[in-house]
Amino acid sequence: MKPPRENIYFVDGLPVPETPQPGEKPAPWRQTRVIGKARPRVDAYERVSGTAVYPSDVILPKMLYGAILRCPHPHAKVRRVDLTAATRLPGVHAAISGDSLKVNPEWEYRTFGGPTVKSLLFDPHCRHEGEVVAAVAAETPYLARDALAGIQVDYDVLPFVTDEQQALAPDAPVIHGDSNRVGPPQVYQRGDVAKGFGEADVVLTETYHTACELHTPMELHGCVAEWDGDRLTIWESTQGVFAVQSGVAKALGLPLSKVRIIGRYMGGGFGSKLVAGKYTVIAAILARQIGRPVKLVLSREETYLAVGNRPPNHMALKAGVKKDGRLTALDFTGTGSGGAYPAGGTSLLDWQVRDLYTCPNVRCETTDVYIHAGPARPFRAPGHPQGSWALEQMMDALAHAIKMDPVQLRLKNIPAFSQARDGQPPYTTTGFAACLQEGAKAFDWQQARLKPARGKADEVWLRGVGMAGASWFLGAGFGPATVVLRVFADGSVNLNMGAADIGTGTKTVMAMVVAEELGIKSDMIQIEHADTGSTQFSGPSGGSKTVPTDAPAARAAAVAVKRQLLAMAAVQLEEKAKRLTIRDGRIHSTGASDKAVGIAELKELKRQGVIVGVGQKGPRPEGKVVVPFAAQFCEVAVNRHTGELKIVRFLGANDSGRVMSRLTYDNQVYGGITMGIGFGTTEKRYLDHGQTGKLVNRNWHDYKLPTALDVPVDMTSLPIEMPDDQANIVGAKGLGEPVTIPTAAAIANAVFHATGIRVTTTPINPVQLSRLLAQHRKKE
Amino acid sequence: MKPPRENIYFVDGLPVPETPQPGEKPAPWRQTRVIGKARPRVDAYERVSGTAVYPSDVILPKMLYGAILRCPHPHAKVRRVDLTAATRLPGVHAAISGDSLKVNPEWEYRTFGGPTVKSLLFDPHCRHEGEVVAAVAAETPYLARDALAGIQVDYDVLPFVTDEQQALAPDAPVIHGDSNRVGPPQVYQRGDVAKGFGEADVVLTETYHTACELHTPMELHGCVAEWDGDRLTIWESTQGVFAVQSGVAKALGLPLSKVRIIGRYMGGGFGSKLVAGKYTVIAAILARQIGRPVKLVLSREETYLAVGNRPPNHMALKAGVKKDGRLTALDFTGTGSGGAYPAGGTSLLDWQVRDLYTCPNVRCETTDVYIHAGPARPFRAPGHPQGSWALEQMMDALAHAIKMDPVQLRLKNIPAFSQARDGQPPYTTTGFAACLQEGAKAFDWQQARLKPARGKADEVWLRGVGMAGASWFLGAGFGPATVVLRVFADGSVNLNMGAADIGTGTKTVMAMVVAEELGIKSDMIQIEHADTGSTQFSGPSGGSKTVPTDAPAARAAAVAVKRQLLAMAAVQLEEKAKRLTIRDGRIHSTGASDKAVGIAELKELKRQGVIVGVGQKGPRPEGKVVVPFAAQFCEVAVNRHTGELKIVRFLGANDSGRVMSRLTYDNQVYGGITMGIGFGTTEKRYLDHGQTGKLVNRNWHDYKLPTALDVPVDMTSLPIEMPDDQANIVGAKGLGEPVTIPTAAAIANAVFHATGIRVTTTPINPVQLSRLLAQHRKKE
Repeated sequence: MKPPRENIYFVDGLPVPETPQPGEKPAPWRQTRVIGKARPRVDAYERVSGTAVYPSDVILPKMLYGAILRCPHPHAKVRRVDLTAATRLPGVHAAISGDSLKVNPEWEYRTFGGPTVKSLLFDPHCRHEGEVVAAVAAETPYLARDALAGIQVDYDVLPFVTDEQQALAPDAPVIHGDSNRVGPPQVYQRGDVAKGFGEADVVLTETYHTACELHTPMELHGCVAEWDGDRLTIWESTQGVFAVQSGVAKALGLPLSKVRIIGRYMGGGFGSKLVAGKYTVIAAILARQIGRPVKLVLSREETYLAVGNRPPNHMALKAGVKKDGRLTALDFTGTGSGGAYPAGGTSLLDWQVRDLYTCPNVRCETTDVYIHAGPARPFRAPGHPQGSWALEQMMDALAHAIKMDPVQLRLKNIPAFSQARDGQPPYTTTGFAACLQEGAKAFDWQQARLKPARGKADEVWLRGVGMAGASWFLGAGFGPATVVLRVFADGSVNLNMGAADIGTGTKTVMAMVVAEELGIKSDMIQIEHADTGSTQFSGPSGGSKTVPTDAPAARAAAVAVKRQLLAMAAVQLEEKAKRLTIRDGRIHSTGASDKAVGIAELKELKRQGVIVGVGQKGPRPEGKVVVPFAAQFCEVAVNRHTGELKIVRFLGANDSGRVMSRLTYDNQVYGGITMGIGFGTTEKRYLDHGQTGKLVNRNWHDYKLPTALDVPVDMTSLPIEMPDDQANIVGAKGLGEPVTIPTAAAIANAVFHATGIRVTTTPINPVQLSRLLAQHRKKE
Repeated sequence: MKPPRENIYFVDGLPVPETPQPGEKPAPWRQTRVIGKARPRVDAYERVSGTAVYPSDVILPKMLYGAILRCPHPHAKVRRVDLTAATRLPGVHAAISGDSLKVNPEWEYRTFGGPTVKSLLFDPHCRHEGEVVAAVAAETPYLARDALAGIQVDYDVLPFVTDEQQALAPDAPVIHGDSNRVGPPQVYQRGDVAKGFGEADVVLTETYHTACELHTPMELHGCVAEWDGDRLTIWESTQGVFAVQSGVAKALGLPLSKVRIIGRYMGGGFGSKLVAGKYTVIAAILARQIGRPVKLVLSREETYLAVGNRPPNHMALKAGVKKDGRLTALDFTGTGSGGAYPAGGTSLLDWQVRDLYTCPNVRCETTDVYIHAGPARPFRAPGHPQGSWALEQMMDALAHAIKMDPVQLRLKNIPAFSQARDGQPPYTTTGFAACLQEGAKAFDWQQARLKPARGKADEVWLRGVGMAGASWFLGAGFGPATVVLRVFADGSVNLNMGAADIGTGTKTVMAMVVAEELGIKSDMIQIEHADTGSTQFSGPSGGSKTVPTDAPAARAAAVAVKRQLLAMAAVQLEEKAKRLTIRDGRIHSTGASDKAVGIAELKELKRQGVIVGVGQKGPRPEGKVVVPFAAQFCEVAVNRHTGELKIVRFLGANDSGRVMSRLTYDNQVYGGITMGIGFGTTEKRYLDHGQTGKLVNRNWHDYKLPTALDVPVDMTSLPIEMPDDQANIVGAKGLGEPVTIPTAAAIANAVFHATGIRVTTTPINPVQLSRLLAQHRKKE
């Protein structure tokens, strides 16, 4: 048998034709030349040099600037809006309110499986600070904001409740209907928890609290809206152009084909830019009324008030474990608030408890409540970091209680089936044990555990290590996706896809997929994406779905054009197509002959000008579930006097199937850990519950994002590469969410290891930690 | 048998499934609900209101304005270009010349089958007035033109020849090589002309001259060029974005995928905007050098000098006819000049002589020569109006000589085969006889012929009628073309095609094709077109190819999505897909049941978000030729004293297969006749052959385009509708060129009928006609 050649597929040790026939699924990649390598981003120059045009950079001829007047009260009714003074300002072209519009569009808030609440674009009943009251458009952004000051609003100020625990008190002001419960409690149950606790050797109970976190993407929420006849074009900073298209079309009563949303570059969303915002529709209404384009970009303060957050949650967890480490029961109760409208205050909060470990008896009950605050939106791994904060600290406590290494305890409970032993489908691949074992080895976990203080007992800095595991329920991507590839006569390629690149490197990964399959260089590939008018359909980039959804479609499209290229070459070279392969832009025979032709030399390609291939995401694997796993390890140092916390080093081990692009993979790991450090140690939305109900920390000074100084230099990304060929034809599972889920819990466990203090409330900031250290000292 | 329903296909009287299976060709349309109707243009509002953004309307942030310094001499060598003073002007950002560039790109001129001449973008040897010498970019267009005045150029001024007949004189200055002949004379021959003349009852000989005509589209030639990293985007007023892409990529050495050409709206081209101009590449070079976008729009004077023209031609035709009207021989000699480079000075000049009539013995010889003038470009029916000027006047003269009605003479020689009796393939359909007969009837031709002067012999205005016929060799379209349709969840549609709408209504026709096939309203269809970055491939819109090329691709794409929609409805309605049809946005059963569902109500469509269908132009019919035919009839009045010519009425009868859109069809007819009136009666480029070699009439005042006052109010479009189902799956043949080919000859024939004077040189303007009338009076 001849030695294997690069770029030839082998299945069961036998070479198979590289290019499947129509209808056949392409063989898995066995060896790759591009995929998995560390390649710079295809748009690195543009992003770094500033030539990349983000929606907030768009300037159109005759463009005006919009601004929104927002309700300053957490609860009020608008009695009257007087726009007169604003409209009289020279340079102000329009001022609008609910009453000034012919149609004040309906605005729906809904959660998956929860209730739907109808509101209005300009709703006279303002249920949170920052609700939309009026809007203007003027020659400059400054003038627009000045004009807002000229709008007179009479409010009936009403009683409010902004604390999610107080909201359930019998005398609390009611946000909707006759109770602040969003719906009946959601209950999940398997086995019998009472029986499980009876079988346990150790049972622990603890309560946990996580603060409300704000999304804070670098690029503010905003758009530019322009009309051309009855067609509306909007440049929007969004994770999903098609979702925005559908929201805008619905609000304005337009056919979808007449609403074009262009995204292209965008500066982060983390879940807060999945759908159309009210500001998008307002910009469109202003632009139509004036007959000129309108740019409307929110201020940071507005985004903090009105475009979403990670809900605050309160959790109680009771857990039983045998001395050998087997979990016997988990009983979880959680509450939370998505704010003033149905917005998933407890969405997926219990998923880690239900799903991460094999445990026969589990009960979860979650209760979502309304408060007078801005609505939540999905935030990188919705519910999961909060649930992980509880579960993974509990696992640490259980390990401590039965004197078992925390890694070992987790290895005792590795799942092979979704929601173990509940008649659920198995996973396609499970790299959780490898994440734990190889992560621990690379971190030198056992050695590090032995030296908790790394110095003398009276030293200022207490050192400790901690770890946590995680899974993400949605690893196969979702929804349909189409990619269209065009190959030009010189062999260069245009890739057309609907997906947004939200900063994660989607474009780079797609270019690498195509370069791999077609044997060409990535820099011959130009990508057009995220434009409902001219690119293909894909759902919003979120939920770690983009690579597992769009990369298979890209590969399928590449296979489709490759089939045509090889057929052309077969005619020109007088060779069978199945004997041909492409490398370095040339098609050559893999047989005995040395026949070869460059793609750019194909006569039929020249004749046709451009050839087209369409690829679509395949179905999910039948009867199986695709789930990525993660384990994170960290070392911290705590100042025993001040409560200052230093994160010394971090390691993230991830099983997300195939590593597509090593650089973007590592970027996701580092970014996820950084975001987890923020969630765990610095970030918290402060509402003035007692006096005003208003947001206290509404800017980057007062709202503490982690800075470069809060993040360790020593960060390691350890891919546990297990190509998941059952998941899809590229073998990749999602990566974006699992990288941030366990971070905060790992830090809390390290803090416990360093100090003996179990911090159950986020963020672990010096204010809290110095107080806990003082209490601890007293106890000692 | 049940009565036929609308929208159900019948073949041989039997209903066939409306939607073909994959691979099947859709059945011809037998009844239509949209196609053929007079519907307003889909972009009428935008075009009329001014919201349509043409390339010359594009304004980008930080955009600069370019301008080109052009050689003022018909023949000179550039010794030195000093840019110093220009670059010192405040607000001037760059000044470039051939010497200042690292690479002065090659520039090729070639004709199909003729020689290729290599030149440079900035060629120091200037072979025509208006050749590119230097360029600048500045803050305003005015400043850019001022800066040109600061550029110092030393020229070696050289002897020139600008008259195409003098260019063949032995002592004429030579433009390339050692002779001004572009190549050896092109000879076509069938039968034996000497024998043919021997068999004739009447033999006539005449010489004909046609002036050089300038394209003069409303929108000037120009572009905006912008770089994003190594990617170049150009908004260009062009007939073919892919042709411009290829020219620019070649000149700048870029992969095609990195050059994006956006056309969208454009304001006319008539053949002069088929390829990249030097100005396009210059704008790109300036933009790259400065790092800001550059707009470069030529002045009207520059377009008259440098972007093309219809070559001046000189023809001799000898024709033999039997008394019964059968042609026995045609002997044609033609010369012409495409200017200083190979540019088709005699392209297709003899085609009407070879092809329009059955004649056993034909000989054509054409000689193309160089002169020191701007290169020609294809101009609406290249060569044809000139050849028709000769042939159709000769036919009129022959009819006069044998005392036969000119319509009858033509009917005696109707062809059924391409280039009759030469072993050539037959036509798919031949509506020429119908054009002649039905046109004559509708014009009341025989009655009109009887009253030549329509009044007393001493009246000032002499009245006459004339007619001419025509064919266009390219009726089936050409080149590949792809259309992608996307259907959104609400049933609205996005149509993606590469073809430019050059003002002819292409977008409207494509929307009607899709509306017809999908049973939806045209206003639910949004079209994205003419963008190499985001739309599908199609060749340039020219040669009457757009409808027969792109409409079949659009129909095929509609069939592809329809198949998916019907399959979805079949599942949802529990009905067989082949029993389903779509009308008014609803899919309903054609069987006994009354099951129906709206497209917007299809659950699977909602789940998929968007569905995609790809359609491609089918192959041309094998062994057959697709040719559209035309006959035009006109009435004129000639002022016997001043030579003023009034065109009183015109009728155009056209066989172009199926009428796709009645309004755009009629527009083409009226526009073609108008342009033919210009060619025949007003337009002529004057070069100062004796003194300076420069263009004399270089603006809209001196170059006489026909105005509304030169065009008759009484114009009739008479479609001879014969759906050509062999040509393609929409049954349409090209229309844009045949409508203008016979116009000038018909006018000349009417002038002969009115005055007895045969005017053989265009334009028939008062200067010429008053002189001829005076000579005629002397002879009498």
